[in-house]
Amino acid sequence: MVTEDRWIEKLLTFYNFHERIPYGKGEDCVHIQEITGKELVISVDSLVEKVHFSFELMDLREIGHRALALALSDLASVCATPITYLVNLEIPNYLNLDDIVEMYEGFHTLNKEFSIFPSGGNITKGLHLAITITVIGEVKKGRGVLRSGAQDGDLVILTGMVGMSKAGLELLISQSDKLPTKVRNILISKFKSPYPRIKEMLRIREICELNSAIDITDGLGIDLHRLAKMSGMKIIIEEELLPIPEELVTFSEIFEANPLIYVLSSGEELEVAFTLPPEEFEKLRKEYHKQLYVIGRVEYGFESGAFLRKKDGKEISISSFGYDHLEGR
Amino acid sequence: MVTEDRWIEKLLTFYNFHERIPYGKGEDCVHIQEITGKELVISVDSLVEKVHFSFELMDLREIGHRALALALSDLASVCATPITYLVNLEIPNYLNLDDIVEMYEGFHTLNKEFSIFPSGGNITKGLHLAITITVIGEVKKGRGVLRSGAQDGDLVILTGMVGMSKAGLELLISQSDKLPTKVRNILISKFKSPYPRIKEMLRIREICELNSAIDITDGLGIDLHRLAKMSGMKIIIEEELLPIPEELVTFSEIFEANPLIYVLSSGEELEVAFTLPPEEFEKLRKEYHKQLYVIGRVEYGFESGAFLRKKDGKEISISSFGYDHLEGR
Repeated sequence: MVTEDRWIEKLLTFYNFHERIPYGKGEDCVHIQEITGKELVISVDSLVEKVHFSFELMDLREIGHRALALALSDLASVCATPITYLVNLEIPNYLNLDDIVEMYEGFHTLNKEFSIFPSGGNITKGLHLAITITVIGEVKKGRGVLRSGAQDGDLVILTGMVGMSKAGLELLISQSDKLPTKVRNILISKFKSPYPRIKEMLRIREICELNSAIDITDGLGIDLHRLAKMSGMKIIIEEELLPIPEELVTFSEIFEANPLIYVLSSGEELEVAFTLPPEEFEKLRKEYHKQLYVIGRVEYGFESGAFLRKKDGKEISISSFGYDHLEGR
Repeated sequence: MVTEDRWIEKLLTFYNFHERIPYGKGEDCVHIQEITGKELVISVDSLVEKVHFSFELMDLREIGHRALALALSDLASVCATPITYLVNLEIPNYLNLDDIVEMYEGFHTLNKEFSIFPSGGNITKGLHLAITITVIGEVKKGRGVLRSGAQDGDLVILTGMVGMSKAGLELLISQSDKLPTKVRNILISKFKSPYPRIKEMLRIREICELNSAIDITDGLGIDLHRLAKMSGMKIIIEEELLPIPEELVTFSEIFEANPLIYVLSSGEELEVAFTLPPEEFEKLRKEYHKQLYVIGRVEYGFESGAFLRKKDGKEISISSFGYDHLEGR
C-alpha cells in the first residue's frame, strides 16, 4: 500500500456519518442530501505554518483546534448550523502520521460541541504544514445573515469583549513573567483556544431579526470596515462604549501599552459583531441572557467605512486596525 | 484599504452568479439554494509549488487551468454536473496581483466549457504558491457513481488512452529535441492541458447504469487498486487490451523506455475508468459515439486489488504504479 493510502486509512477513523451524509466514507467526494427550503453555506479557511502559527508556540492539537475554530466561525457569522467539513493538508517531511493524528485529535472538542465530523479531504506533500478547511453548514432559505445588510439606524453589537488574543500571543512570544500568573494564563488561553460563537448566534437568530454580521477574525477595525463597505454604510463606534477586559487593562499598565489598540486590532477573536434595529435589540435583551455589548451604530454617510468617535468627539477611520493576510501583519 | 481587500476586490471581478447561487458575491460564505431530490457533491484538491509544479516548466495561466481541471475531475468520476468552486490561495512575496489575475485567467476555458464561476475563497500569505480548490457539483439523489460499487463480472472501461502525460513532463524537464516536433508537442500538451471528462461521463450516465468509477489522477495502477479495494473486488487488466498511444510508442523507441510503465503509472491524466455489467456496455456501445477502451474485468477474489495479466499469462499487482502524494514520487 502506498504511504498516502495508509495515512488516509488511519484518518478515515475520524470520519463519521451525518443524517444528510448517509454514505460515501472514503470516497473522493462528499455527498450531501438536499432539502428544499434550505441553503447550504460553504466557506474555506487556511492556516499556514510560519505565517499563522509555529511549533515553538503551539502544539499540533492546539493548531488543529484553532484551524477548525476559525473555519467554523464563518458559519457563526451567517447564523448557520454546521453539518460537516473537509480537511486539505500540505504535510512536510518532518511530520509523521502520529503528528497528523494528534492534529485531528485537536478537532475533538469542536466536533463534540457541534455534533460534526470531517467527511472528506485531501493530503499531499508540502514544504511546511498548511491546513485548509472547507466548512459546510445550513440555514433556512433566505435566513442567512450577510455582511451586506446593515441599515441606517442599526445598533452595532458585540457578542463578547475583544483584545485579549493579541496580548496573549505577545506574552507567548516574549515569555515575559511580569504579569500575575492568573492574568497571564487567561490572556494566553484566549489566544490558544478561540471558540466560534455558533450556539450564541443561532440563539440570537431565533429571537430577533439581524440585518448584518461579521466574525472578528482579522481585527475589530478591519472587519467592521468590511461590513460597512459591503453595506454601503458608515459605522460609528463610540470609544466610551468599547468594553476593555480587565486583564487587558492590567497588561497595558505593566507593558505601557494602549489597550484601545488591542481592542481594535486583535485578530482571531471569533466574537461576532452584528447590526440590528433598536426595536429588535429590545426583543433580544429580554430573551437572551448572556452579556452583549452595544458599541455603536450604523448611519448613512457620504463615505462608507468604519470610524471610531473618540472621547474628545473626534472621528478617526479604523479601517487599518487589524491583520492583513497578504502583508502578514 | 488593506492589501488583502484590494486584491479581493480585483478577484471578485471573476466571480459570477449561478441559478442556485443568486446572491452573496463578496460574502465570506457561498450560499447554495437546495433542491429536494438532489445531492450536492463536494471535493477538495490542491496543487503546491515545488511539489506539483514549478514556474520553470509552466506559467501561471497553465497552473490555474491545471488546478481547476484536476479538481473538476473528481466531479467527472461521480458523474456530477459542476455548479461552482472556491479558491483558497497561499501567495508568496514574489507574486503580485497581476500574477494571480493571470492564474485566474487560466480558469477561463473550463469556466466557459462548464458554465461555472468561482463564488468564494480565501487568500493568505504563504512561503510558496499553493492553490486549493473546493469544487461543488450536483447529481440526482442516489445517482452519483462511487468507487465502492464495482461488481463481480463488470467490465473495466477507460474513456481514453493514458500514459502520455508522464512522457510530456519528462520531455519538458529534459528539454530533449530527439523526438519529431509534432510528437513532442502532442506529448507536452497532454501534460500541460489536462481536461476533465465531465461531459463524457454525464453522457455515459444518461445512457446506462455504471457500478463504479474513478478518475486517473495518480496513475492507472494505483487508482484502479483504490477502486478495487473500496469495492472489495479484484480487478484484472489484460496487457493485450491496454491501448498504447502511438506518440508514446515513438517516445519509448527513441528513449528506450517501456511504454507499459507509462500507461500504468502516468498521473494527472484525467481519463476516467469505470465498471459496468456487459449488458449495460452493450447499450452504451450503441448510443455513445466516442472511442472507449475495454481493458479488463472485475471478479471476486480472495485478495482485493488491481492486477495486470501479462501477455505470457502471469498476473502482477499494479497497486504501486503511480504517484504517491506523500512520498512525492
